[in-house]
Amino acid sequence: MKGSLFDGIPAELPEEIFDTICSTENVKIERIISRGHASPEGFWYDQERNEFILVVRGSAGLKIESEENIVVLRSGDYLNIGAHVKHRVEWADPACETIWLAVYY
Amino acid sequence: MKGSLFDGIPAELPEEIFDTICSTENVKIERIISRGHASPEGFWYDQERNEFILVVRGSAGLKIESEENIVVLRSGDYLNIGAHVKHRVEWADPACETIWLAVYY
Repeated sequence: MKGSLFDGIPAELPEEIFDTICSTENVKIERIISRGHASPEGFWYDQERNEFILVVRGSAGLKIESEENIVVLRSGDYLNIGAHVKHRVEWADPACETIWLAVYY
Repeated sequence: MKGSLFDGIPAELPEEIFDTICSTENVKIERIISRGHASPEGFWYDQERNEFILVVRGSAGLKIESEENIVVLRSGDYLNIGAHVKHRVEWADPACETIWLAVYY
């Protein structure tokens, strides 16, 4: 039942890691680990569900397609992204892992 | 759209603070701020929904009625509590605020 978002972080992280913590018909809660990762060139997330995203550790820059500026998220910062609001990760901290909590609802 | 779990923490905290970040028919996401607070003597949370609870900063001890030991949660630790699993906060760090993210689903 108890877990830690900081457990099981691999020393090498060639790809981002997405771990489902819990999932029901209506909601999915996920831990994401990034280290210097960005979304592939030209790629946009376009999701069926709303997404609440929280940076627990590290930092990252998110681009919302309809907004001019990159949204910089640091520890404790969150963003609520509506369904089908296209977005991508422009950058994540290259010096340490960025730990995200994502709630899709 | 963007917010921080660490913004708007009052210097004095006579009562715990519960801030709804977003709420739909199926899910509610909430920030909770505690500083040395415990649930009232004899009180148990008994909730209609499942609850995912994450300690983002600080630490606290949760008692699940059906379990013998207090579950100690520190930064990054989470607990998934099923609907109607009775639980209470036995203690929260008295020296600093404890910031929780709660997802009721």
